[in-house]
Amino acid sequence: MSDAKFQLYYWPGLPGRGEFVRLVLEEAAADWVDVGLLPESQGGGARAIMNLLGQGPVPAYAPPVLKMGDLVISQAANICSYLGERFGLVPADEGTRLHARQFQLTVADAVAEAHDTHHPIAVMKYYEEQKDAAKARAEDFRTQRIPKFLGYFERVLRANPRGGGRYLLGSDFSYPELALFQLVEGLSYAFPNAMSRVAHQVPGVMALRQRIAERPRIAAYRSSPRAQPFNEQGIFRHYAELDDPNATK
Amino acid sequence: MSDAKFQLYYWPGLPGRGEFVRLVLEEAAADWVDVGLLPESQGGGARAIMNLLGQGPVPAYAPPVLKMGDLVISQAANICSYLGERFGLVPADEGTRLHARQFQLTVADAVAEAHDTHHPIAVMKYYEEQKDAAKARAEDFRTQRIPKFLGYFERVLRANPRGGGRYLLGSDFSYPELALFQLVEGLSYAFPNAMSRVAHQVPGVMALRQRIAERPRIAAYRSSPRAQPFNEQGIFRHYAELDDPNATK
Repeated sequence: MSDAKFQLYYWPGLPGRGEFVRLVLEEAAADWVDVGLLPESQGGGARAIMNLLGQGPVPAYAPPVLKMGDLVISQAANICSYLGERFGLVPADEGTRLHARQFQLTVADAVAEAHDTHHPIAVMKYYEEQKDAAKARAEDFRTQRIPKFLGYFERVLRANPRGGGRYLLGSDFSYPELALFQLVEGLSYAFPNAMSRVAHQVPGVMALRQRIAERPRIAAYRSSPRAQPFNEQGIFRHYAELDDPNATK
Repeated sequence: MSDAKFQLYYWPGLPGRGEFVRLVLEEAAADWVDVGLLPESQGGGARAIMNLLGQGPVPAYAPPVLKMGDLVISQAANICSYLGERFGLVPADEGTRLHARQFQLTVADAVAEAHDTHHPIAVMKYYEEQKDAAKARAEDFRTQRIPKFLGYFERVLRANPRGGGRYLLGSDFSYPELALFQLVEGLSYAFPNAMSRVAHQVPGVMALRQRIAERPRIAAYRSSPRAQPFNEQGIFRHYAELDDPNATK
């Protein structure tokens, strides 16, 4: 087993909700290990995740789970806020911290809805078994929900009196921007045509995405072999039939 | 406008996600006002909620919103955790607080799925326009998701080394128990037949629900005219066709 200070437990093979935690750990340059990516012989793999679930004095409902010594916590937004605060990726005043958590949770809501575009009926059944409902839900998600969620964050950027249109909170980067970045990345992978229509309505959000991608630690992580690409096992899946039939470009 | 210290903004006419906040405010005996229930002439009603959304230096995506002086925060789980910590409804140590937030967020996930049983395709369309998908999703929710979520909390009660099977955290009541209570109340309203099947599998959860209902401040609030009943405008809706066709009793 690794002796890294922070041990992330998440299913190997997909970015998923684990990626929101990974980005904070990377931006913080934390001493961490991705347990699911270790070989089983080193206590890793999917088996390690399954063994952890339901165990211990405070069981986790689902991954991601973060282990730090004896402390084991779950729920992606909870983990991200904990790490963001611990590593100073958000100002220390209580009001700003509460707003950061609010943004993190709003991104989490959007992520859950993105997932349900391909699984609108039953999470444990195959996409192919719920394709008609998926088409209907995806259309609503593309035309109503993506503009609403991203439009909200565009308003947040504009409303922030000290951000110059660039920052969600105050006058500098804060950890919820990593979550918003990952949401936009995921939506762009899953719904490229829909996103080409929405992008011009949310220029501030798209510029933020670009700035986050260029942060040195994020760029280094994303070009490393440790970063796992989006695929059709994850939350953000690209099924052409769920995207807009036409791009605007 | 009321001069209460805590002003809750939530749609009048349904318990909804606002109820999770109300229960914490009531248990804390906080000085609070339900702005949506004030007459419009006193700055209340649905209009006050609509006016607040999108306003201010940190806009809210959706209600519930809590206003305390100049500080305005949103996301129900965020508000509940803030209040629970501020009013000492959870021990002060960091680990326990992180676990309380984890439980609060897991309840919030179950609530979102309960909502989607009647709105599996599009939140802004009528139930009647998505009835077939609703039937399929509700069946999965009843048979897979309710047992999974409540079974998780049953395991949490049993795993807590100091709780004697009675408490989610440590050896006493803590604020996420209010959320779990409200979840069970909502599920019992929406899916009485399904819940009659599940109840015997989660005796600890059902006993917790009973203990919370008997807490003096919760009982007083729930028998007051301020408490709004479940109905078919809210998150937890009773549509007979979405419940199990048969009760077990």
